This record gives sequence, C-alpha cells and structure tokens, in this order.
Amino acid sequence: MSEAMTRYLEVRRRTEWLAEPLTAEDQTVQSMPDVSPTKWHRAHATWFFETFVLAPYLAGYEVHDPDYAFLFNSYYEAEGPRHPRARRGMITRPGVEEVGAYRKGVDDAMLELLSGDLDAAALDLVELGLQHEQQHQELVVMDIKHVLAENPLRPAYQGLVERSPNPTVRAARRVEVAGGLVEVGHGGRGFAFDNEGPRHEVFLEPFQLDDRLVTAGEWRAFMADGGYERPELWLSDGWFTVQAEGWSAPLYWSSSGSDDWTVFTLAGERPVVDAEPVVHVSHYEADAYARWAGGRLPTEFEWEHAVATTAAAAGEPSFGWHPAPDDGASSATLRQVFGDVWQWTSSAYLPYPRFRPAAGAVGEYNGKFMSNQMVLRGGCCATPPGHARTTYRNFFPPCSRWAFAGLRMAYDA
Amino acid sequence: MSEAMTRYLEVRRRTEWLAEPLTAEDQTVQSMPDVSPTKWHRAHATWFFETFVLAPYLAGYEVHDPDYAFLFNSYYEAEGPRHPRARRGMITRPGVEEVGAYRKGVDDAMLELLSGDLDAAALDLVELGLQHEQQHQELVVMDIKHVLAENPLRPAYQGLVERSPNPTVRAARRVEVAGGLVEVGHGGRGFAFDNEGPRHEVFLEPFQLDDRLVTAGEWRAFMADGGYERPELWLSDGWFTVQAEGWSAPLYWSSSGSDDWTVFTLAGERPVVDAEPVVHVSHYEADAYARWAGGRLPTEFEWEHAVATTAAAAGEPSFGWHPAPDDGASSATLRQVFGDVWQWTSSAYLPYPRFRPAAGAVGEYNGKFMSNQMVLRGGCCATPPGHARTTYRNFFPPCSRWAFAGLRMAYDA
Amino acid sequence: MSEAMTRYLEVRRRTEWLAEPLTAEDQTVQSMPDVSPTKWHRAHATWFFETFVLAPYLAGYEVHDPDYAFLFNSYYEAEGPRHPRARRGMITRPGVEEVGAYRKGVDDAMLELLSGDLDAAALDLVELGLQHEQQHQELVVMDIKHVLAENPLRPAYQGLVERSPNPTVRAARRVEVAGGLVEVGHGGRGFAFDNEGPRHEVFLEPFQLDDRLVTAGEWRAFMADGGYERPELWLSDGWFTVQAEGWSAPLYWSSSGSDDWTVFTLAGERPVVDAEPVVHVSHYEADAYARWAGGRLPTEFEWEHAVATTAAAAGEPSFGWHPAPDDGASSATLRQVFGDVWQWTSSAYLPYPRFRPAAGAVGEYNGKFMSNQMVLRGGCCATPPGHARTTYRNFFPPCSRWAFAGLRMAYDA
Amino acid sequence: MSEAMTRYLEVRRRTEWLAEPLTAEDQTVQSMPDVSPTKWHRAHATWFFETFVLAPYLAGYEVHDPDYAFLFNSYYEAEGPRHPRARRGMITRPGVEEVGAYRKGVDDAMLELLSGDLDAAALDLVELGLQHEQQHQELVVMDIKHVLAENPLRPAYQGLVERSPNPTVRAARRVEVAGGLVEVGHGGRGFAFDNEGPRHEVFLEPFQLDDRLVTAGEWRAFMADGGYERPELWLSDGWFTVQAEGWSAPLYWSSSGSDDWTVFTLAGERPVVDAEPVVHVSHYEADAYARWAGGRLPTEFEWEHAVATTAAAAGEPSFGWHPAPDDGASSATLRQVFGDVWQWTSSAYLPYPRFRPAAGAVGEYNGKFMSNQMVLRGGCCATPPGHARTTYRNFFPPCSRWAFAGLRMAYDA
Repeated sequence: MSEAMTRYLEVRRRTEWLAEPLTAEDQTVQSMPDVSPTKWHRAHATWFFETFVLAPYLAGYEVHDPDYAFLFNSYYEAEGPRHPRARRGMITRPGVEEVGAYRKGVDDAMLELLSGDLDAAALDLVELGLQHEQQHQELVVMDIKHVLAENPLRPAYQGLVERSPNPTVRAARRVEVAGGLVEVGHGGRGFAFDNEGPRHEVFLEPFQLDDRLVTAGEWRAFMADGGYERPELWLSDGWFTVQAEGWSAPLYWSSSGSDDWTVFTLAGERPVVDAEPVVHVSHYEADAYARWAGGRLPTEFEWEHAVATTAAAAGEPSFGWHPAPDDGASSATLRQVFGDVWQWTSSAYLPYPRFRPAAGAVGEYNGKFMSNQMVLRGGCCATPPGHARTTYRNFFPPCSRWAFAGLRMAYDA
Repeated sequence: MSEAMTRYLEVRRRTEWLAEPLTAEDQTVQSMPDVSPTKWHRAHATWFFETFVLAPYLAGYEVHDPDYAFLFNSYYEAEGPRHPRARRGMITRPGVEEVGAYRKGVDDAMLELLSGDLDAAALDLVELGLQHEQQHQELVVMDIKHVLAENPLRPAYQGLVERSPNPTVRAARRVEVAGGLVEVGHGGRGFAFDNEGPRHEVFLEPFQLDDRLVTAGEWRAFMADGGYERPELWLSDGWFTVQAEGWSAPLYWSSSGSDDWTVFTLAGERPVVDAEPVVHVSHYEADAYARWAGGRLPTEFEWEHAVATTAAAAGEPSFGWHPAPDDGASSATLRQVFGDVWQWTSSAYLPYPRFRPAAGAVGEYNGKFMSNQMVLRGGCCATPPGHARTTYRNFFPPCSRWAFAGLRMAYDA
Repeated sequence: MSEAMTRYLEVRRRTEWLAEPLTAEDQTVQSMPDVSPTKWHRAHATWFFETFVLAPYLAGYEVHDPDYAFLFNSYYEAEGPRHPRARRGMITRPGVEEVGAYRKGVDDAMLELLSGDLDAAALDLVELGLQHEQQHQELVVMDIKHVLAENPLRPAYQGLVERSPNPTVRAARRVEVAGGLVEVGHGGRGFAFDNEGPRHEVFLEPFQLDDRLVTAGEWRAFMADGGYERPELWLSDGWFTVQAEGWSAPLYWSSSGSDDWTVFTLAGERPVVDAEPVVHVSHYEADAYARWAGGRLPTEFEWEHAVATTAAAAGEPSFGWHPAPDDGASSATLRQVFGDVWQWTSSAYLPYPRFRPAAGAVGEYNGKFMSNQMVLRGGCCATPPGHARTTYRNFFPPCSRWAFAGLRMAYDA
Repeated sequence: MSEAMTRYLEVRRRTEWLAEPLTAEDQTVQSMPDVSPTKWHRAHATWFFETFVLAPYLAGYEVHDPDYAFLFNSYYEAEGPRHPRARRGMITRPGVEEVGAYRKGVDDAMLELLSGDLDAAALDLVELGLQHEQQHQELVVMDIKHVLAENPLRPAYQGLVERSPNPTVRAARRVEVAGGLVEVGHGGRGFAFDNEGPRHEVFLEPFQLDDRLVTAGEWRAFMADGGYERPELWLSDGWFTVQAEGWSAPLYWSSSGSDDWTVFTLAGERPVVDAEPVVHVSHYEADAYARWAGGRLPTEFEWEHAVATTAAAAGEPSFGWHPAPDDGASSATLRQVFGDVWQWTSSAYLPYPRFRPAAGAVGEYNGKFMSNQMVLRGGCCATPPGHARTTYRNFFPPCSRWAFAGLRMAYDA
C-alpha cells in the first residue's frame, strides 16, 4: 500500500474512531445553528472527496447518491444549491448506517484512484481533502460537546482521564521578543491553507509574551474581582453580549449559587481545576480579561513570530479532550503552544497582501469568511495529531465560545 | 388475562407499532417547537402511567429513572420542573432502546397492578392514561409527518395504499337542522375528557351543514380565484399570517411553478387528488374559504348537535394515513364525520358552564389551554380506532396547520 | 345651526381639546406598535369623514391632500395600500399644524354638507364617523399615557385631581341573577356598531356578579399571596407571558423593591390607592386573579344581561383620567359599570348568529378582528361621555395591558 | 472676544443652523436604533461640555437639569446609567425649545469660563468637545436623511442645488505608490482623536489607487452584470446580508421596476446621476464591487500613505449635501479625497501599537468600539469644514449603509 493510501486511510479511520462512542441519536441532532451533527460531518468530508477528487479524476465514477450533493455541501456556492445550515439536524435519513456505507463506497473509489498515477494537482486536492477532514474531526469534538451539554443529563463522551488531583501552577514568566521587520506567513514547502500566505513582511515593535496560558484559577480571580460586572473592562460589543446572554463565567461552567464551580467536560461534569488553562471563552472575554490583568492579547503576527523563534517543540494534544495544566518545568521558551487551547489574538481575520483564493469551488475555502472574525493561533486538545503549525490561522466570531479557545497574555515591551 | 390488561396492552402495543417504521434518527429530532420526537411521545405516555398510577397505587414501586420526570413531563407544573418543550430534540440519550426498556418496565409493573384489585379512582386514572396515550398516538403520526417533510428527500413513512386513480366527487348536499334549545356536552357513561362536560343547554338557530367535507379540488378553485391574495376574504390576523408566512396553498403542497400541484403524504410525494378532502389547512384558511364559498364554519355546538341527531355511523380512519374521497353513496345524513380530517369550527376553545378541572396534577390536562385556540370536531385518518366521539373537543391555535385538519361548510337556514 | 352640525362640532372639538396639553413632539412619537401618535389619530378620524362621507356625498369635493389616504388609512384594505402600522411614528410631516389645517378643511366641508339635505344612508355614515372619532378619543388617552410613561421623566398629561386621601372600601356584595333563555345584543333604535347585533337568544344558568369592581388593594393581596409566581392559577399562555415579560404587577406600577408601590397616572406618578379599581391588567391576569379569588370572570352575555336588568344608572367617566373608588353607597344593583374600567369577560370576541358586516369598506370595521381577542364590557374613565352602552363590545388580545381594563368577579349560583 | 470664544460659538452655531430647517416633529423621532433624533444630538453635545468641562472647571456651576445626564449620556459607562439608545425617540420632553434653552444656558457658562484663564488640560477638553460636536453635526445630517426617507412623502431637507444636468466622467487613472517601511498615524501638533495614534511604522508593498471615486454609473454596470445576484463576488456574511435584507441597489435608490433609478437626496427624490460618486453602500457592497471590477479596497494605511504623499489639496464638502461629480481636470494626484464620500478600506478598526485610551470617562471615546467595524477614510459632503484630515479614522459595521460612504479602487502593483 502506497504512502498516500496509508495516510488517506489513517485520516479517514480517525473520523470513524471519533464517532464510535456516539449513538445514532447523538450523531443526528443539531444543538444550535453553528453546530453540525456528527453524521453530517462524516458525510460532508466524504462529499468533498467525491466532488473535488473522484468526479474529476476517476474515470467512470458515479456519485453514490445524487441527492447527497444537496444535503452535504456546506457552503460551496459554485457547487449549486444546498440544504440550509440551520436545518442540518432535520436530516434523519440517510441514517448513520447509510452514511457509513457512503464513506465505505468513497473510500473504495479513492483507494482505486490512489493506486494509479496521479498528477500533482490531483494529489494536492487529496491532501486538501485530508486536511479538510482533519478540520472536521476537530469540529466533531467541539460540536458533540455542545450537543451532550444540551442534554440535561449531561452524558459523558468518554470516561475520565486520571490526573493528579490538585496540581500546582507556577507564576507565568514573560518571554521577551525583539521586534523589527520580520517575515510571517507560510512560504516553504509542506501543506498550508491558502489563507496562510503569501509570506510577507510586517513591522513589529518589541513585546513580551507569557510562557504559559491563562489558567482557570486566574479566571476565577477575574470573576471574583467583578470581571463580568465592570463595563470599563469590556469592548462595547462585548459588554452588550455579556448582558444580552447573561454571561457570568466561561461556557460549560455551572455553579450551585456559591463559588462552587463545576465544568462540563467530555468526560462529564467535574469540579473546575484551577491549574488547567481556561477554555471556552469568547474573544470578548479574553480581551476583557487581558485588560483587567494589565496586558493585552498578542497580534497574530506577534504570536507567530514569537513561536517561530522561541517556542519549545510543538506539544501534542492533551489527553482526555481537555486542556492539561502546565507541567511547571523551567524553560525560557513558550509552552502550551499547540495542544491545549486555541489562543485568541487581537487580529481581525483579513487577507494577507497579494492573497489570491484558489480557482474554482475550492477557492471558497477560506477567503470568503474574512469579515467579523478574529484570528486564533496554536491548536487545542481536539486538534488531530500533526495538524497544527506555526502559520495556521483559525478564526471565529468574537462572541463564539464553543471552540476550545483560551488565551495567552502579551505586553508592550 | 383480564379485560383491563388486554385493553392496556392493546393500546400500548399500538404505539410501538406506530414507531416500528422509524429509525432511531427519525424518532429523535424535533422539526419545530410544536413537534415532539416520537421517542419523546413513547416515553412521555409511559411517564404518565408511572407518575399518576404506579407511584400512588403500586406498593413499593420505584421509578425507572429519577431523571425521566424532568425529561418527559410535558406541562404538569404541579409535578415539578421540566425540560423546555422547544428543546425536546436535544434528548439524544436516553436513546430509543432505553426508551423501549422504560416502556417494558412500566408495562410489567402495570400488569402486576392490573392483576390485583383496583378501586374506581385508580381504574379511572388507568383509563385516562390510555386515552392520553391514544392522543399521543395521533400526535406521533402528525409529528413524524412534519419531521419527514422537513427532510429534503421527503422519505415515506409507509408504502402507498392503492386507490382508484381519479375518483369523481358528487356535489355536496345540505342537511337541514332545526335549532332550538338543545343539549350538548358529555353527560352519559363512558370515558370523556373533563373539557367535554358538563352537559348543558344552548340555543341554536336553524342551520344547514354540508353532508361531506370540502375537497382538494374545491380548494384549487379557491386558489385559482385568488383566495390567498384577496384580503377581504380573511380575518385580519389571518391575512397577516398569510403574508408573513408566504402561504399560497395548504401545508405540504408543492408546485413546480405551474398549476401542477403535488402533496407530501405519509406514503411520499404524489399528485393532489381533487376528490380527497383538503387537509393541513389552518383555521384562518378554513374561515377564508368558507367566506369565499358563500357560507361559514359551523359552531362546535351546531356540529355536535347535527352529528348527534343526523350523522351516519361513525366512519373508521382512512387507510394509508390520508383522508379518503367520499364514496358518493346517496344519503340524507352527514358523511366523513370521524375518520378523515378534523373539522375546524367557528368556536373558540372555552370552558363549558360550571366546568371544573380535576383535582391535582391531572387537572392540568385541558383547562389551562383555554385561550387563543379554536375547537375542531370529528376525528381524522390518524385518530386511533375507537377514540373519536361526538362530544370530543380537539383544539389548536388558528394558525396551526400540521394537524390533519380540514372543514365542512355550514350555512344559516 | 342644525342639531347634526352641533353634534358634529361637539365631537370634533373634544378631540382637539384632548390634544391641547400635548406638544408637537408628544403628538408625534409611537411608543410601541399598538400605539398610534395623537397626531395620527387626529388625522385618521378626519380621513374617515373625507373618504366615506365627503368624497361620495359632497359634490365637487376635492381631497385635502392625495397623499393622506396612504398615511392615515388604518386598515381598510378596500381603500388601497397604506403606511404600515408599526411605522406611524415616522410621519414627522405633515406636522401638528398641517394636521390642524386638515381638520379645519374637512370640518368646513362637513358643515357645508350638513347644512344641506342628507339621506339616511349619509346620515348613518356621519354618525358612524362620529362614533369612530369617539373611539379614537379614548385611544388618544390610552396611547398618550403609554407614550408619556416611556419617557423616563414620566411627565404628567394633566394636573392632579383632588380626592379624599385614603378612602375606605366596603366588602363587595354579590348580586344574584336568574338565568334562562334571554335576549342579548343590540336590537332597538339608536346607534350601535355592527358587531353588537343581531339581537338573539342565549341560554344562561343562574349566576352572581359582584356589585363593584376588584380594587387595587385586593390586587395587592393577590400579589402578596404569590399571585404572579403560582402557575396553577394561570392559563398556560398567561403563565408563559408572565415569565416572558417579567410581569409582577399591573402595567404602570413601580416599586423601589419594598412593598412601596407607586403608579403612573395621567396626573403623574403617585402612590397606589387601595380603594381604587385595579386597572391596566391583561385578560390573563384578570383570569388568574378570579381563579385565586374563588370565582371567575363573567361571560359577556352574563354581564350584559345583568346590567340590562339590574344595573344602576350608567355612571359618568371618573375625573382625572383614572378610575375612582366606589363611593360605598348601599345598593342592590351593580355599580361602577361604565365610567371607571373596562371589564374583562371570559368570552372570546366572535360574531353573533347571522352577523353580517356592512357592505363596502366600512364593513371592515369590526368583523375582521374576530380572532384571538377577548371581549370587555362597560366603559372607562377615558370613554367619551355618552359613548358607553349596555351592548357595546370592546375587545383586546388577552395579553394587552395598555387599555383601562380591570375586572368584576362572577360566580356560579 | 477671544479666539477660543469665537471658535466655540462658530461650532455651536453651526449645529443650530443645521437644525433650522427641521420642525419639532422632525427633530424628535428615531427611525432606527442607529439613528438619534436631531434634538438628542443637540442636547448630547451640550451635555458633553457640561459634564467634562463646566462641572470640573467652572466654580459654582450647577447642572441645568439633573435628569439630563440620564437622558443625554450616549455611552459613557463611567458617567452612570443612561437611557437606552434604541429608545431615544421616546424623549418627547424636554422638547426642542427646552433643548434650545439648555444649549443657551451652557453656552453662557462656557463663555464665562472661556473668558478666564484656562489650563492646557481644560483647553484640550474644550477642543475635544468641539470636535465631538462636529462629529455629531455630521450625524445630524446622516440621521435626518434616514428619518425623512422613512416618511413615505420623502420630504426634502433643503432645496435643490443646480448642477450641470448630465456631466460626463472621464476614465479613472491609477496613481502608483511605492511601498516600503512608512510611518502612519497622527504624530504632530494639532488636534487628533486618540485612535489616530501613536504614529508608528508599517510595511507596505507597492500598490496603485484610482485618482477618483467609483461612480453611480459604474455601480449601475455592476448591477447590470448581476452584481447583487452572484455569490462568488461576496464575502459570506455579505451574501447572507444581501439575501436577508433584499438588497439590490444602494440605500435610498428606488426603481419603478424598469432600469429607471431615482435616488432620495436631502434635496428630495431625483434621478440617479451617473457621474456622481456612488454613496450609501455598505462595506460588503464596496468589497463585492471591487472584486467584480478586478481590484480591491485599499488598506487604511495604503490610503493614508497615498494621500499624505500624493493627494491634491483637501477638497471642501460638496454643495447640497450630496457628493459631486469629479470635474475631470487632468492631474497626477488623488482627487475627491475629503469632501464627497467616506471611502471604505479593507482594514478592521483596531488599536494602533501602544494605543492607550485617555484616562477617565473621555477615554471611552473610541477604544471600546474596536470590534466588528471597518475603517473608512477621507470625509464627505456632510463633514463640517475643517474637520477632515489625513489620519482621521472613521468606522462603521460592514453592513451599515446610512453613512455617506462610497469607495475608491486599489490594485496590487
């Protein structure tokens, strides 16, 4: 089996492995318009291969079901009409078994295709499809967490991972970074999404970054100091959202009225652990926290330049689908970079100079979302292994909280 | 096995039989706030027996799962807090299998209870539970039709029932009914809901009722005559709704732009059959149609008195979960009374004189819904056999269309 | 000057007198979609005469401004398109002065018309126009109260009327009314709206009515007993509304947190007076109160029959645009019937048997609102003198609170 | 009279001059939540002087009315609670005359204060107050245009300014700008808002800017080519907005169905003039147009650097409150820079490096709005004389259309 086939199967099987703990019912419902059913993710990632790889490259390929293009296209306008996003939870049929058969059928055809000679353009599309499926793997985890949290029984996705019960956390250290005219963006070989390039120059003033993430315990101090009740700490839109949504703690935190906070994790409900990185906060909250704490969020270029020049080796995703406490090891470099929580930056998600989307429908991948979103950098405990990189630009609206997002403090030098 | 046990099992088994064609996915989703998942209906009707019969009457009974009261209580405030109605589609767990086990466990306990001596109060509650479950059987059919119609593939619930392809329909005959001081409401023996009584006197002027239902073909004539575009035909709220919702035909009708109408039925999409009773129209539409056709809707008391004194024997539900054409037989009596479509009346749903709800939580059954609803009389193709009766008061808001509701014309004498 | 001219001028002048205390700004804004600006009422009532009387009956009459039909038509679909109701507050021009000139111009033409011979049909339309204007006089008062209450300064419409500071209130007496087959509805001579007829027979069981209205003090007892927190007292829609709107007291009541209630009146903010009738409650609240107090609301027919047979002479409107305490005089008849608060009934607003709307556009006056509304009977402190009568049917949706509406208790005999 | 007094009076009188053509009614209503009544602007700008200048600096000053702080504070959380923005149209009282008296009273006190010795901090606050009032002068014009356009009569604010009936427009020329490490932001003397600094370095690649604005005629070509119907031209959020709002042309454009477009201007409705700059388009529309036209929007730094180095002398505002056609004069520099329409850039509104808001309540002026907004540069036909400058950063959400906003094309070199 060729390397390409091995990699293809590895990525595809991981998706199925993620769905394994879930019942047909779990995989079907949509708990809010931003969330997609697990079953839908499994079919959509498959439709991507069918539409952009098999249809143009595998001679004689016939689509598995002509209706699926309508059901499982996400937003590719050039590929025709599609089922409305907010109604994905209505697709009771095809069921999980039919979606499984769809995946199997496309896998068979893909393996046939990959067993032959493919030109570079086709191989690029296969790789894009795999990276795309990995993005959806992370979405499967984010989304099913929201689905299970909406059930008043709050069932667990997986069993509890054992950790030391009450880890201590050391004070953060500030890593100094010299500014100047530096290069950012993807420019070398290896896969990257179109929005990561072109590589280009930006001018940075000197700055500092904390070597570790903001913790849940620090967040509790923010809450105890009236963080959610003091308008002067917030952006105007953020303060409006706090009041409209009644936010008083991160998403998935609950309290019985006292200061006795618990948090819903994918292993079920359990007490908040102070040493763990705070997670499931919006950009608005991260920005308010940073102001309260006497610093600010880094720009995406500060983050990238600092990580590119000073970070420790990329961490792997935390076990148990939940960010892990920093291990406290002494180090002069940035820690908790890729495997715990996405880190909000102060940068709006905008095109780099001379950015050009790819031609055709795959060109709708990234560029058209460049408004009303903020960039997050790093990776998280739900990011597939090997999927994170220094130039990766994740993005969400500033009010979003269901991603595994936290923050790292920055300061003017 | 006692008669009570036999009846209990018969009703309970029919619910399971209704759910049989449905997948776990079908049974889980909620297509609009008014719709409940099949699985939820199955559990809720079970919770009713557990709460109002087993808990008070079966010594030593322990509830199947203490969380279920929260999940499967519908609106009984006296029974404590409950899951919000509009979020019933979020209950991915318990799944269909666990709900099946719940039903089995309650059935076992109920059979144990029914094998002993029960006082009249307990037997009344068992009967109320069975009537309640029959109501939910009809809701299962109404609701799953909406769920399947929301799927763009519009899958069928069951296969097509063969009918004569293009039946003719005869002109309606007007049945004359003398007015006067007449008695209405349930007053005899046999089961009735509290809202059907007390039996009391009302004064009616002489009137006429059509012997058959308004047909789909007649409805097309209304549409062709601009029925949905002429405000003078509509109640003010109705006209507002027509415009806000963009109504131009009954629910589940589709057209490719020409006059080529098809309709989604539980056997799938098929052409509209002119001879069939029109169904899935709101009170607003029925009222506008009646005005256009030169008559009016009957009051609920006109309907009841006419049926009590002149109707043919109660029809049985139409086959194939869809109203059947009138067979055209000559008759001086009302036809298509109970088995095809619920018939909108011009009566608001209000308490009868000296109405008293039952004591305790079961008293929340009917009375508290007596606002903003209109009464429908008769029964429909989804009504369980034996469940319809002359004094039965069904009710829905005037904008509702997902019930199997149509109309019968009335006229001043 | 003829009697018709005198009456015409009297009614028209009263509208202007109502507007006198109001600035141009007061007369322009719309505080919620249900409310219309004073200026709009003044113009709309004028448009009614222009459209339905002057245009057809005064030879050579030219409309004051052809745009006004679009601006000041309220809901007469047959009279063509019109400005959306919820945007009436956008009509900054014509201003109050131009509206004054419009009124003057139409008055001149009307006087010219009335100085000649008019047939009965025309005179009926003039009378309809005057009754219509009187209805809008009451709306002017209701609406401006809402407008002024929305201003955080809560300015007064008029100065305070002196009353005895703390009047006592006697216990209510129940007036017994025999039932039977009785006649209701307008049938004699004198003006009535189409919805008040035809006169017809209804059958009533014996019942009792309180001789006085429910007071603010009794309402405080209801509140103190958890009236707004006990779902078992409420219709389901009512309970939903209480929670959605956060109701905990009648509209216009405020409290600084303690039990120290004040109320906004048209004379400004002042303490709640226990002896006064409660006012500005919805049907839902009236219904819940009646259940709590061990009785019920009367039907509109019970109310009408009782008043027709046992009421004291019609009271005049209370001074000071606020309902007055009962004077406590001993009497075997109903008191506080017409001049204090409209009284919610348990009757939905529906057509009487053989009801036929008038032909043409004026036929849109009443009939098309016969859905989702409840009937109120009597009159209130804002009702023009001479405008109330026993058969008058006022109506509002059950959630409405900005009318001067309260209640009188009824009981089964 | 001192220079400071003269300038103070000049700015203040211009506000009153803007309000002169407006009736009390015009000045009172609020046509959408983003719009404030003219009267409110007049009072709010006055409250600013009272609160931030008179209260701290004029010994013995007593506030004009203690309620006004609640009514006329816009968003300064540090200054206490305030009337909700969306309800500013409810403030019927104080009326226009009382607001006039308020302005007069504050002016008298300000002149007293200005006649004495003031320290630099106080003088800075006076200048901030005047700049603030000038910003509100532009808002008065924008807002009243929306108010008058909501009136179906579409009354004019002022009479028509004569222009050549059908001016021609020459092709745009591209002005080349070399990139490199350049300085942007306010750094010198003279007034600037806090968000215009600190001055700092950015790196720009070489680019081109059109010497003139995009015209209405070019916009019609975009529309004729399906600009509003082709999703591939739009940002995803933009496309959603186009469909949700039903946009098919700029705000204030109307068509009778043919291609016969008219536009509402402050001089009333008149035909679209092809040679005039397009105005009242959102960022989404500007972005889609630029993509269609084969270019892009400039970044705010490209715009600033180009104007600072190559622009013609700042233009003055167009006559008649409407952007004027380019006069076609040959020139190698940028034209139509400051006096016609604000020009959307591709830059999100974010803080410059080392940005620090001012201390205290005036620090809420700009920084807290730095989310979900896009920067516009230049000035417009409603900008007060002398108020525009090269470093000025205007900002609106990308869906906003009621500002006088258009665009200038940019291109990669």
